[in-house]
Amino acid sequence: MEWKLYKKEADTSDTFGAFPTLELLKHRPAAARQVALHSSFTDRPAAAEITDLCRKNQIPLLLQDKIFKRLSPKENCFVIGEFQKQEQPLQPEAPHLVLVNPSNMGNLGTILRSALGFDFLNLAIITPAVDLFDPKVVRGSMGALFSLQISRFSSFSAYRSCFPRHLCFPFMLNGAVPLQQLSWPSSHQPALIFGNEATGLAAEFSSIGTPIIIPHSSAIDSLNLSIAVSIALYAANLAHSKCRKA
Amino acid sequence: MEWKLYKKEADTSDTFGAFPTLELLKHRPAAARQVALHSSFTDRPAAAEITDLCRKNQIPLLLQDKIFKRLSPKENCFVIGEFQKQEQPLQPEAPHLVLVNPSNMGNLGTILRSALGFDFLNLAIITPAVDLFDPKVVRGSMGALFSLQISRFSSFSAYRSCFPRHLCFPFMLNGAVPLQQLSWPSSHQPALIFGNEATGLAAEFSSIGTPIIIPHSSAIDSLNLSIAVSIALYAANLAHSKCRKA
Repeated sequence: MEWKLYKKEADTSDTFGAFPTLELLKHRPAAARQVALHSSFTDRPAAAEITDLCRKNQIPLLLQDKIFKRLSPKENCFVIGEFQKQEQPLQPEAPHLVLVNPSNMGNLGTILRSALGFDFLNLAIITPAVDLFDPKVVRGSMGALFSLQISRFSSFSAYRSCFPRHLCFPFMLNGAVPLQQLSWPSSHQPALIFGNEATGLAAEFSSIGTPIIIPHSSAIDSLNLSIAVSIALYAANLAHSKCRKA
Repeated sequence: MEWKLYKKEADTSDTFGAFPTLELLKHRPAAARQVALHSSFTDRPAAAEITDLCRKNQIPLLLQDKIFKRLSPKENCFVIGEFQKQEQPLQPEAPHLVLVNPSNMGNLGTILRSALGFDFLNLAIITPAVDLFDPKVVRGSMGALFSLQISRFSSFSAYRSCFPRHLCFPFMLNGAVPLQQLSWPSSHQPALIFGNEATGLAAEFSSIGTPIIIPHSSAIDSLNLSIAVSIALYAANLAHSKCRKA
């Protein structure tokens, strides 16, 4: 099967490295198209696991080295997977994370990993946004991408019309409620909403729900986006655990 | 004054961009050696502020464009500052953040910004570690570097012998106490301790204080280091506020 260098317009993308490739094969095998193993890697334990998963799921496994020179951006990459780009419908009865126009690949990858770690398994991305399927995002997420439900929407109102019952918590630098007071009734699910790295959320977002602020000193303008989102996910996960116990 | 391309061994480094250069001039003007302004930038408000600060602090200001081609790694950079590398002694009566062998420049820059935002103004770096003064770290920190006290130590015990009274909280994946229970008596200051991106802290760290865990689901192996540190700083800052109120 032909295997092309990644392009944003293509309907496939790639996992570079054993770890994200294993995540692909374990959690979304139906999306995997083919896998390549480098000859210097074939006696590693991960190689046996990859080989097994490919056999079980009837995924073509290439044992050739020249494809690494052509596809891999880094020298120390010995496993590559090719997968079909797919979005998944968000679950309506689950907490949502909503990213409005995220623009940095490294941040997005890190956010996906944190979202998986803090049990926010449903993610809406409002476009225009950085390419969710770029191999840099996949790698930055350590393959967390393959365990999440992620959908893209062309506007916040497009998202909102699909999920009108979620309680909205826009994160804003002038938010009224500090993060440590974040809570919601068990009758509803929360949607945590974050703006773009450079501009944050537009002022009108303050009227769609309860604006939340992550308190920090005035010595910095703002936190890095992946940091702000991850702190919010940590706090929301704690608030949810308390809610379940109550 | 000669202005060379950055090298790890040099005794000076550079700020690329108006924002980190302003942080240098505002918070550590004595360390600034010279500043360059690009001709396409001279009518911006920040240019007036930079010019004023240079005049006030008798810092040479170069108005020439060719130096940008030589020094700047990016096209959209219109201000560069050169500064003397300096470490600052840590304050003994303040909370400390201790990073053992951090190895990623982007993570370190982001951590510096979070540390400033959550009032952890004293940072110990245990070497070997990534170059603290690399322009990528300075830029990633958004200039937060210039508002922090940062010292490097050749081993954890070298740090510990200087600050034996701090209560140690090593962050470990098998830590006994969840982060939300982090607390300390007002008679002492805490030292939050984090290991390297790839390896974490060695097992023996569990005996130097109270090992803390950031609870997350088993779906991920660990959080990104800059995320883990920032969540810890957020929680410690909250715990400290409660302690002051009590």
